[in-house]
Amino acid sequence: MNQPTHSWVKTVQLTQPTLANNTADVDRLIDALKSDLNTNHIRIDLDLMRTLPALVRQSEYHLRCILFKDGPQWLLVGITAGRNDRAVAGIALDLGTSRVVLRLVDLTTGSVLGETAMDNPQIAVGPDVLARIHYADRSDRRTELQQLIIDDLNTHIEQLCRSCKLAPTDVYLISAAGNTTMTHLFMGLESRFIIREPYIPTVNRPGIQKTRDLGLTVHPNARVLIFPNIGSYFGGDLIAGILFSGIHRQEETGILVDVGTNAEVVVGNHDWLMACAGAAGPALEGGVSRMGMTAGPGVIERIRIDSETGRWDLDTIADQPPRGICGSGMIDLAAQLFVTGMLDIRGKFVQSACADRLEKKNQLYRLVVVPASRSASNQALTISQADIDSLIRSKAAMYTILETITSHVGITFNDLSTFYVAGTFGAFIDPAAAIAIGMIPDLPLSTYRSIGNSSLEGATMALLSIDAIDEIDWIRDRITYLELNVNQDFMNRFSAAKFLPHTDHSRFPSVMIPEHNAVRE
Amino acid sequence: MNQPTHSWVKTVQLTQPTLANNTADVDRLIDALKSDLNTNHIRIDLDLMRTLPALVRQSEYHLRCILFKDGPQWLLVGITAGRNDRAVAGIALDLGTSRVVLRLVDLTTGSVLGETAMDNPQIAVGPDVLARIHYADRSDRRTELQQLIIDDLNTHIEQLCRSCKLAPTDVYLISAAGNTTMTHLFMGLESRFIIREPYIPTVNRPGIQKTRDLGLTVHPNARVLIFPNIGSYFGGDLIAGILFSGIHRQEETGILVDVGTNAEVVVGNHDWLMACAGAAGPALEGGVSRMGMTAGPGVIERIRIDSETGRWDLDTIADQPPRGICGSGMIDLAAQLFVTGMLDIRGKFVQSACADRLEKKNQLYRLVVVPASRSASNQALTISQADIDSLIRSKAAMYTILETITSHVGITFNDLSTFYVAGTFGAFIDPAAAIAIGMIPDLPLSTYRSIGNSSLEGATMALLSIDAIDEIDWIRDRITYLELNVNQDFMNRFSAAKFLPHTDHSRFPSVMIPEHNAVRE
Repeated sequence: MNQPTHSWVKTVQLTQPTLANNTADVDRLIDALKSDLNTNHIRIDLDLMRTLPALVRQSEYHLRCILFKDGPQWLLVGITAGRNDRAVAGIALDLGTSRVVLRLVDLTTGSVLGETAMDNPQIAVGPDVLARIHYADRSDRRTELQQLIIDDLNTHIEQLCRSCKLAPTDVYLISAAGNTTMTHLFMGLESRFIIREPYIPTVNRPGIQKTRDLGLTVHPNARVLIFPNIGSYFGGDLIAGILFSGIHRQEETGILVDVGTNAEVVVGNHDWLMACAGAAGPALEGGVSRMGMTAGPGVIERIRIDSETGRWDLDTIADQPPRGICGSGMIDLAAQLFVTGMLDIRGKFVQSACADRLEKKNQLYRLVVVPASRSASNQALTISQADIDSLIRSKAAMYTILETITSHVGITFNDLSTFYVAGTFGAFIDPAAAIAIGMIPDLPLSTYRSIGNSSLEGATMALLSIDAIDEIDWIRDRITYLELNVNQDFMNRFSAAKFLPHTDHSRFPSVMIPEHNAVRE
Repeated sequence: MNQPTHSWVKTVQLTQPTLANNTADVDRLIDALKSDLNTNHIRIDLDLMRTLPALVRQSEYHLRCILFKDGPQWLLVGITAGRNDRAVAGIALDLGTSRVVLRLVDLTTGSVLGETAMDNPQIAVGPDVLARIHYADRSDRRTELQQLIIDDLNTHIEQLCRSCKLAPTDVYLISAAGNTTMTHLFMGLESRFIIREPYIPTVNRPGIQKTRDLGLTVHPNARVLIFPNIGSYFGGDLIAGILFSGIHRQEETGILVDVGTNAEVVVGNHDWLMACAGAAGPALEGGVSRMGMTAGPGVIERIRIDSETGRWDLDTIADQPPRGICGSGMIDLAAQLFVTGMLDIRGKFVQSACADRLEKKNQLYRLVVVPASRSASNQALTISQADIDSLIRSKAAMYTILETITSHVGITFNDLSTFYVAGTFGAFIDPAAAIAIGMIPDLPLSTYRSIGNSSLEGATMALLSIDAIDEIDWIRDRITYLELNVNQDFMNRFSAAKFLPHTDHSRFPSVMIPEHNAVRE
């Protein structure tokens, strides 16, 4: 995937000027590139014009050029001597609300040189998008929020380059994918109208900017591509995800799902793309139960309950004593509780089946997942009925969104050739468990494909392929955004989806429902 | 001419965003402009993105936009509230080697608001192009030379704006036309290879740059268009001149001549353009005779000699006592001396006809133009045989260049519908006198048209018409440059032209040759 199909780096040998061929240095170079790239429009900056005459003569008219593309126009971003040992590099950025990932790539070979990550320092003023937008209501604070992330990026860029024996000035291209708010704060743009009806971002297509206009300290002439968004709730990270998934290039219809606090969904093929986003609730992100948390050492990521022996098997991250459970572990747990008969189809604890694992405290039932004696904190890890109820609302929302968008475009789940699951969630989720609780449709497991940090991967593609950059705008302009109206139709679907796996069991033929649970039918 | 055909200023009323129409602010504006301008490519700077959300809401979605065009891409340069009393202005620059002229125009109405001129401060390091290029051989001195002109421009821009009750920040667009060297020094570009074989400029098409990258203190987001050149010896001032003359738009073939130390000539029509440049000698620029000078108060601009009475009538600039004579006055004088029989066809003083106006000093004849008693300096103003010889070489060079280029394209002088004469020289020259000495062809006087500072006028057009800016590149790319080879053919023509008006008198039927002068034939 990282092999550059058409690299942004071009080496050219110019013909030497003569009395009969007295084209200027700059125009000589541009004419050569024009014919190489088959374009009429190449732009060069004044900085490069100033240094070219000496460089072109020293290097005997043999030059290495770093280009980028901005709509119809190619940008000549950097020029070095043609024979050169120094790598020319690019950095792909995944601008997450919580985490920011930086990947250094060699623009010539397409190889990944290194990768690093950092917490988004804007967390200091607010953990989520909403809090940061409120904070950035004043323009000096907008500048402050931008400076926070730019400063930390500069530090990490410097470290990342150094670890690969490069300097920041070797970095000529950056591509940044993030949600609409993160992108706005990265550029120092007004974000207040993103969260105020009718939810208008400042910009949908930020295009290509000079890195120095953003304060990034890389090559002084470097450019940054900022992925476009479809609106306040469908950001450039998802455009990058689509680019990486390739659903827009395929004849068969695919679907891409990215789940966080919001569930973002794109369905389509090379003819059309339909997208929507909806609140899936906090259950899938961590934070849901008192023991819920994001992935980390000691977090339970996998649970198996033997229905014969009643024995529980827990896998924790890094094999540490259990400390809590993350979103994907919750799904695994709920699925196991359901298929072993400890949860009924309404998602309520079945006392007889739960036996002595069930406790009642403050009028609320809770189930002991890990007894105090075996947990990292020496306190029992439990899950309450409220936690399960919350998870069921989230999974029902997810399923309803999937049902709504597919029925809107007139297809069934069986029409989907591939079901891409993006992000950390996608990396950890067990599709079989998610199917068992009716969160995702009952498709063959081979249909599901986890594509990891597709935002970072898409950003990387933009650095390594000329074709990819044209696809970005193509994707953005091709997507139809479906506004999810929470109307009676939606609510009916949602209500039907609040059962395990669904009111209409025939939709989940692979899920075996314990006999004593089927009573309600 | 100054009425804008398609102004760079557009006022747009945007539809207000709704839940159903939630395009971002920037994209909403750009989409409106795209449909207005019938283009797919508009670029906006980050600065403008930052201020747009507040501005668009304060002005109720009614905006005034200042645009410019860079190849295939429109640039959104400035945005103000739609209802606005403040003018948006542009400045046209004629970057002369000796003088720089600034013209302030209202971009909305197309009217000229004011004009000013200044000496080119680079004169301090060298009077001509050659001296300045030698000086700028070191990069720190290149910066110094650029700073000299930028500083003075900033001062004059500030004064010019103030005199028109505007501020420099009201200036959004600048267009600059100058010869290739002045343009390079204006941008701080390497100029050393311009004068070294094979005479390669750094750039032919500098395009549009940010004014702040050049150090010009106008609107921080303003742009400057720098006219392209054809090579080291055919600069943007001439492209601007062609644009203003309009020969490239006409069906009939015209010719444009700009005379300084070099004579630059373009001949053509809407199908083709052929250009050349050649040394015309210093005779036509001032500096030739001891009393020669550039136009100014007391300078003789017109001479009439009554052949019957022998009476001399002199017109001086501003009617001041005579101080000297300029290039056009020299032509007038030579023509009058010739037609009254005081010069023979070889350009030698005829003793009998000159009578007591002729003096001999240091073996050299000289003619008293103004006796000491009537000159401003109380010293006689005289013209020597050497001065006349120099003038004749210059006029012969001019005529030979005209003959060479027309014969190269296979036309005769009679095929020329209009003969444009540009610059100060064109403003003062009397075509009848120039014909009398055989400097320019013997065409009907109505064929000759003086077009003044066509470089400044062409630069002004670029600010006031969208069409003009496309024409600039069209003109540049259409011109074929004819390298003047000083071969035997050229020398034969030159020798034949060194007579008054020409060896072949039949070419100048309107010129009456005094009988005693015709002896040679």
